[in-house]
Amino acid sequence: MTGKTQELPSADNVRLSKEGDSVVIIDQTKLPGKVETLSLQTEGELFEAIRELRVRGAPAIGIFAAYGLYVLARQIETDDYEVFLATLREHSRHLRSSRPTAVNLSWALGRMEELVLSHPGLSPAAMLPLLEKECRAIQQEDISMCRSISEYGLSLLQPGDGILTHCNAGPLATSCYGTALGPLFLGAERGLPFHVFADETRPLLQGARLTAYELQNGGIDVTLICDNMAATVMKKGWVQACLVGCDRVAANGDVANKIGTSGVAILAKHYGIPFYVLGPSSTFDANCPSGQEIEIELRAPEEISKNYYARPMAPENVKCYNPAFDVTDHTLVTAIVTEKGIYRPPYTQNLAAMLGDTTKQEP
Amino acid sequence: MTGKTQELPSADNVRLSKEGDSVVIIDQTKLPGKVETLSLQTEGELFEAIRELRVRGAPAIGIFAAYGLYVLARQIETDDYEVFLATLREHSRHLRSSRPTAVNLSWALGRMEELVLSHPGLSPAAMLPLLEKECRAIQQEDISMCRSISEYGLSLLQPGDGILTHCNAGPLATSCYGTALGPLFLGAERGLPFHVFADETRPLLQGARLTAYELQNGGIDVTLICDNMAATVMKKGWVQACLVGCDRVAANGDVANKIGTSGVAILAKHYGIPFYVLGPSSTFDANCPSGQEIEIELRAPEEISKNYYARPMAPENVKCYNPAFDVTDHTLVTAIVTEKGIYRPPYTQNLAAMLGDTTKQEP
Repeated sequence: MTGKTQELPSADNVRLSKEGDSVVIIDQTKLPGKVETLSLQTEGELFEAIRELRVRGAPAIGIFAAYGLYVLARQIETDDYEVFLATLREHSRHLRSSRPTAVNLSWALGRMEELVLSHPGLSPAAMLPLLEKECRAIQQEDISMCRSISEYGLSLLQPGDGILTHCNAGPLATSCYGTALGPLFLGAERGLPFHVFADETRPLLQGARLTAYELQNGGIDVTLICDNMAATVMKKGWVQACLVGCDRVAANGDVANKIGTSGVAILAKHYGIPFYVLGPSSTFDANCPSGQEIEIELRAPEEISKNYYARPMAPENVKCYNPAFDVTDHTLVTAIVTEKGIYRPPYTQNLAAMLGDTTKQEP
Repeated sequence: MTGKTQELPSADNVRLSKEGDSVVIIDQTKLPGKVETLSLQTEGELFEAIRELRVRGAPAIGIFAAYGLYVLARQIETDDYEVFLATLREHSRHLRSSRPTAVNLSWALGRMEELVLSHPGLSPAAMLPLLEKECRAIQQEDISMCRSISEYGLSLLQPGDGILTHCNAGPLATSCYGTALGPLFLGAERGLPFHVFADETRPLLQGARLTAYELQNGGIDVTLICDNMAATVMKKGWVQACLVGCDRVAANGDVANKIGTSGVAILAKHYGIPFYVLGPSSTFDANCPSGQEIEIELRAPEEISKNYYARPMAPENVKCYNPAFDVTDHTLVTAIVTEKGIYRPPYTQNLAAMLGDTTKQEP
């Protein structure tokens, strides 16, 4: 949780058990009160953990799903390639349906499926070690991607800056460092101080429960605010940059991220504050032309009216509208930071170049 | 609660007891779960009720304070005018300190004091009926002001409009009808439908607990959203106007209102949606040149991290910034609606004319 380089591979919030027969996570719904680990084996348990946000954050969900699919693959009792493939795809389809918006989920599961497809006829027994290697690789790549994103992100900030962040895109949302919080942890390692304003992020309070927890644990100065206070801290001149993660980025640079992100972007534009989106390139969906085509998950009304509260905080049966994400128009985004570099408008062109390009762009 | 004209004088959320020896209120902190009335007599009880938001909403606080000062005046045991005046002013000063931002509190108390000052040498026994008449007049004036504000406000809307509101400026915040919600209740009486999006209004959830409750009770279509969802419902084209109340309006049209109001105004401007501020002219502070001079109340961090929750929702001892109000720049305000009419920029000039003018302006 301290984000030190030497501790990087620990990345304990999502991992494969020593025996490889279960996925072990920190139950994020219990934080910050309790650090409780769960060991998940069945398809039902894995699905529930994503659906109920025990594991969350686009990159972490991807890693989790890949590990999950491997764990389920081990349970398929067949020697037949076709049966193995069909069953695996069934599991994959089901896990993919747990949350519709995050592209990493789909991306990681697709990558596992592709591996099987690229070895036609290979026996399941021979396939399993390849699948294990693949899901471990997905996590290792995430770790080095986050490190790289953090470096690029840090280059955009000045020591002493006030930073506003929304939701949680820290170590818990990834494997280590995080995306939006990565530059801050990297900065802390190097003795560069930042002052962070963490939006509490209603209704599920990922900012209060997770971001404030991670930053406080990491020794980074953090002040918790309600989402509706973001305009005030910006007006006071306390914010020099906004850093947020992303769940899906469309080809034109429109960004799907936690509900409320687009509002922060509009406020930032009003106050002339740069608004940076940080995420691995696996979050980019080249097949999605714009934010309009991104399906936004609608969640239960009780998350607004009842959850977490000691007593209901709204009238019985009041109608609630509870989208989990929103789309921030690319015109509001100052730059998008990936492991490959810092991308600025025009996004359609520059993101396409990034996706086609394997070399890194200088910051 | 239905906002029907014939029920107007009931205005049961703040009233003087039959005997005139206590102020009776609905404890707004218990809503929507319980409708509990409190009968308050001592200075300590009265102070606590304002401080803890058992009574809230700028106009309601003003009415409450006037009644409270009358109740305390009855308890002053003297026949001497000067002693009576000095003690009354002591009480007034104390009540005024309960919440610094709302100008109505200060305005109503000042009006009661003025009455005593304008009758030098009058015996306390003769003064008390005048004070009772004055505080009752303050409430009656509020009722007719709200009615007038509602009429002007309604003239700005089209039946079927989607309306976004923040915090609570309904009947509970005033005596009847309310200010920001007044046009909606008046519309409902006339069979004009509106679709309201109520920001829950963190941290104290006045939108969820009070606005959603009042509108639902009044048979008005209401959808509860988290504050950070306002940008999304605007983007979807579901909002044709924003209606908010105000706690203090400066001479230049800057508006102090519940924290988060300025953010809503910025979003509304971004999406080209008119942003209307509704309030009685007693909310205008001609002595306050701009929002910069308005003192903003800072409240306890626990309101963000712990209150209402079944368990703490943020790390122990996390720093919180918890301003109760913010200032919306007058450049973001489409019009200000008072009982005297609809005022548009340039505000410095037009508001000064309003305050100097006793005739009504045509909408």
